[in-house]
Amino acid sequence: AAPREVWKKGGRLLSVLLAVNVLLLACTLISGGAFNKVAVYDTDVFALLTAMMLLAAIWILFYLLRSARCPGAVPYLDAHAGPIWLRGGLVLFGICTLVMDVFKTGYYSSFFECQSAIKILHPLIQAVFVIVQTYFLWVSAKDCIHVHLDLTRCGLMFTLTTNLAIWMAAVVDESVHQASSHSNVSHTRLTPDLERASGSGGGGDTCSCNTAICQIFQQGYFYLYPFNIEYSLFASTMLYVMWKNVGRLLAATHGHSHTLSRASLFRETFFAGPILGLILFVVGLAVFIIYEVQVSGERGRTEQALVTYYSFNIVCLGLMTLVSLSGSVIYRFDRRAMDHHKNPTRTLDVALLMGAALGQYAISYYSIVAVVVGTPRDLLGALNLAHALLMIAQHTFQNVFIIESLHRGPPGEEPRESPPKESCQGLTFANLDPLHTLPACPPTPRLVNPSPADPQEAMAIILAPRGHWRRRCLKDISLFLLLCNVILWIMPAFGARPHFSNTVEVEFYGYSLWAAIVNICLPFGIFYRMHAVSSLLEVYVLS
Amino acid sequence: AAPREVWKKGGRLLSVLLAVNVLLLACTLISGGAFNKVAVYDTDVFALLTAMMLLAAIWILFYLLRSARCPGAVPYLDAHAGPIWLRGGLVLFGICTLVMDVFKTGYYSSFFECQSAIKILHPLIQAVFVIVQTYFLWVSAKDCIHVHLDLTRCGLMFTLTTNLAIWMAAVVDESVHQASSHSNVSHTRLTPDLERASGSGGGGDTCSCNTAICQIFQQGYFYLYPFNIEYSLFASTMLYVMWKNVGRLLAATHGHSHTLSRASLFRETFFAGPILGLILFVVGLAVFIIYEVQVSGERGRTEQALVTYYSFNIVCLGLMTLVSLSGSVIYRFDRRAMDHHKNPTRTLDVALLMGAALGQYAISYYSIVAVVVGTPRDLLGALNLAHALLMIAQHTFQNVFIIESLHRGPPGEEPRESPPKESCQGLTFANLDPLHTLPACPPTPRLVNPSPADPQEAMAIILAPRGHWRRRCLKDISLFLLLCNVILWIMPAFGARPHFSNTVEVEFYGYSLWAAIVNICLPFGIFYRMHAVSSLLEVYVLS
Repeated sequence: AAPREVWKKGGRLLSVLLAVNVLLLACTLISGGAFNKVAVYDTDVFALLTAMMLLAAIWILFYLLRSARCPGAVPYLDAHAGPIWLRGGLVLFGICTLVMDVFKTGYYSSFFECQSAIKILHPLIQAVFVIVQTYFLWVSAKDCIHVHLDLTRCGLMFTLTTNLAIWMAAVVDESVHQASSHSNVSHTRLTPDLERASGSGGGGDTCSCNTAICQIFQQGYFYLYPFNIEYSLFASTMLYVMWKNVGRLLAATHGHSHTLSRASLFRETFFAGPILGLILFVVGLAVFIIYEVQVSGERGRTEQALVTYYSFNIVCLGLMTLVSLSGSVIYRFDRRAMDHHKNPTRTLDVALLMGAALGQYAISYYSIVAVVVGTPRDLLGALNLAHALLMIAQHTFQNVFIIESLHRGPPGEEPRESPPKESCQGLTFANLDPLHTLPACPPTPRLVNPSPADPQEAMAIILAPRGHWRRRCLKDISLFLLLCNVILWIMPAFGARPHFSNTVEVEFYGYSLWAAIVNICLPFGIFYRMHAVSSLLEVYVLS
Repeated sequence: AAPREVWKKGGRLLSVLLAVNVLLLACTLISGGAFNKVAVYDTDVFALLTAMMLLAAIWILFYLLRSARCPGAVPYLDAHAGPIWLRGGLVLFGICTLVMDVFKTGYYSSFFECQSAIKILHPLIQAVFVIVQTYFLWVSAKDCIHVHLDLTRCGLMFTLTTNLAIWMAAVVDESVHQASSHSNVSHTRLTPDLERASGSGGGGDTCSCNTAICQIFQQGYFYLYPFNIEYSLFASTMLYVMWKNVGRLLAATHGHSHTLSRASLFRETFFAGPILGLILFVVGLAVFIIYEVQVSGERGRTEQALVTYYSFNIVCLGLMTLVSLSGSVIYRFDRRAMDHHKNPTRTLDVALLMGAALGQYAISYYSIVAVVVGTPRDLLGALNLAHALLMIAQHTFQNVFIIESLHRGPPGEEPRESPPKESCQGLTFANLDPLHTLPACPPTPRLVNPSPADPQEAMAIILAPRGHWRRRCLKDISLFLLLCNVILWIMPAFGARPHFSNTVEVEFYGYSLWAAIVNICLPFGIFYRMHAVSSLLEVYVLS
């Protein structure tokens, strides 16, 4: 095999520095391009993104070619990385992104005479990039590569940075669009954009989007943005795990793969969770459509729409909080051992859940301060306050439930009978892992307790009673939370912005400050829902 | 001993959730209080901070009492935590903070009739808090406590949050002050603050700061803010390490303490580093004073001041980049083994160095975009560009040098002669650590290679040739970089703001956007210098 690394952190440092610098450059241009008064045009941003995607695609092709040529390049596979639902989601969102690229190309070709070529080139290159990257992640998400460590790390980090830059650009673009559609005063980018183009290009009339097909293209691609955003984030998390796995040593037998037996998919639940979840999902969809219709009407109906919206959300969040809490209570009676194995995928999942929740936390705290300190106290204010408080409680308890679930061992694995040795055994679990990672050394020393991979214990896992009431409860809980998170994802992702329809915060903080807070924090809130769904799916399968 | 934890991450989760929520609430109020138009007054912020400091002080007293009562509470001490220079720095900055509190009390008591009582109470409570906390950290920074784990974690996190909130409040206050002193248009907080006070209190005349002593107090406490900011950050890092060490198991013999032999403090250098550093330090001080004098004069002299300032910085940063690079080159010939021991202090140091550098990176990238895209190309633009590019290079190479230095083993410890076993041994080092942490289990299994604590090797460490040229070079390099970082800390910390004197970026981004960028990023840049100094001191002692 290839020689092992003396200092892994040194190799990582280089790629992190590369990523930080590229990302900051992209961040500067994208944020500069978002402001009208700044002389950075969106063509500059498109040019940068196109160049980055081209480079990343070339590196990916190089990687695929090399790992196909060199048979010993990938000696280990990380069983936890790239589970099927993550890869499936990636393909789904990738297809939506391709549709979006078609719409974008169509929109910009409607008036290509007065656009710079880069605006049409950009979606085309993006389509190529998405296809190449999706194939790459589908094939090699589990790789622990052991050749050209530094180059691979830099390549992975560069591809990750490209995805994050695409994400940032999409979020900024969508926020600008939202702002321009909600307030017809200033804050727009589209108009000056066209003015610029018409100024540099030819006649003014040919450059506006007047034809019906062009309008459809424009509407369509804005509705597809959420999928592009999720695609970039999914790809980023998978790339990050691959980066953590570069040069990692694993025991070949390590890692219990959780194969999803499709036949018994719903058999082991009480049906209460999925049914209640589905009801909330359908009601939520109806509320969302009513809200969107009413809020575009006159003032009186906006208030009515807000009351409906907040009431539904309060009920939904309240139920979710209670259900998460009861899940945590069930765990107090659960005797399964905690899983202390090193697992980069899980560590990342936990960090993302905690980090992404910060976005919604921040919005809620700003709302609370505005409602409590602000003078007008009416029904809407009270609903807003309850909504904000429940949002905080729901995020907190759901995170606690998910994180505890992810750290439980596989089903049926009960701790040994001897209680005094339990604490010691917890450490044994933690320490056997690094010992397994010494394949080139003389036979690994065995600790006093038998390792969890022992034949007896494997038997115990197989023979453990399936369908215990606790397991069924947990499965119900995770399905219910999953469906609720989906509906709470759909609402903001497809344009519900009660933050601006409701005047309390806008008047308290002023439009520009409140818009900045919401536009920075809400994308994290939306990503949180998405990520919670994928984590809850994992909880469902594991429990 | 106390029963060990089944799941450490669960205990940590609770305290992190507490800290996140308290911190976000503080963040909301502080940022709301910074804007004039928002109806959050600074008395609200003061009230919150005072309450938090009181609570934290009470918890600290409770902790001290309890650990004094219960003799088995602290079975292990982390030798890496709370080194003497960190604790010394803490005491130094703590004293400065106390002086600041005296000035603040004096300033606010000058017109106490029309101030709310909380403004005078706040500095008094802060003084009590600083004294209690400094004593606490001096005494128990190395503790690995093993009783009341969850309560201790929550208490430590709450104290950490309090420090971060104080830091945020100080940074915001200083930024508002800087903005008001640099541009005399709007963006002020002091005037409406006084208006409000006079509106609610008595006559208008008695409430303004007219007397000479009051002016001195006001000037004085703004100059002492940087020390308060650093105090909070120092305390935060030490509290974080204590939090990581709660419930940690350590072998009693583990950890080589690096005792600083004061007699040979400078004997082992070539004197080139300290002398060159001192020259740069003195020249830098002169440049800083000239800059501050000239920039407050008329327009023509501002440009001259900027040319002087940028020229000095370019020379200084260029030298630092070269020196850091040569340090990294020296390490390529160094045969000392990498230290793979688990060390929360070092992990935090590295994360802080990388994270804090982001602030200066961001400012530099925004400057580069403004200069490159902006139209006027003159001497100042070129100097600004060179300055920004060198700033990025210097941060990058200095970080690489410091991080590599911190991961080197103790001096004189050369790897074994047998090269084929080296990679295997690297892993041995990494794995012996967790094995040592099983004191309650039967005798730990020995790996094939002798452990580094062997008597023979201890002899080798003692007998290793001292004062090798590489070591002396490294000591010179670290001292030179240290002195340069001190002068580069002094300039922005005490008010040099070429970002606003220079009109390129202000015109390109507009005042408010550029002010937001600089005011958010610069505190991190200033903290980076401070932290680099403490890390370089450690590098000097270790090499």
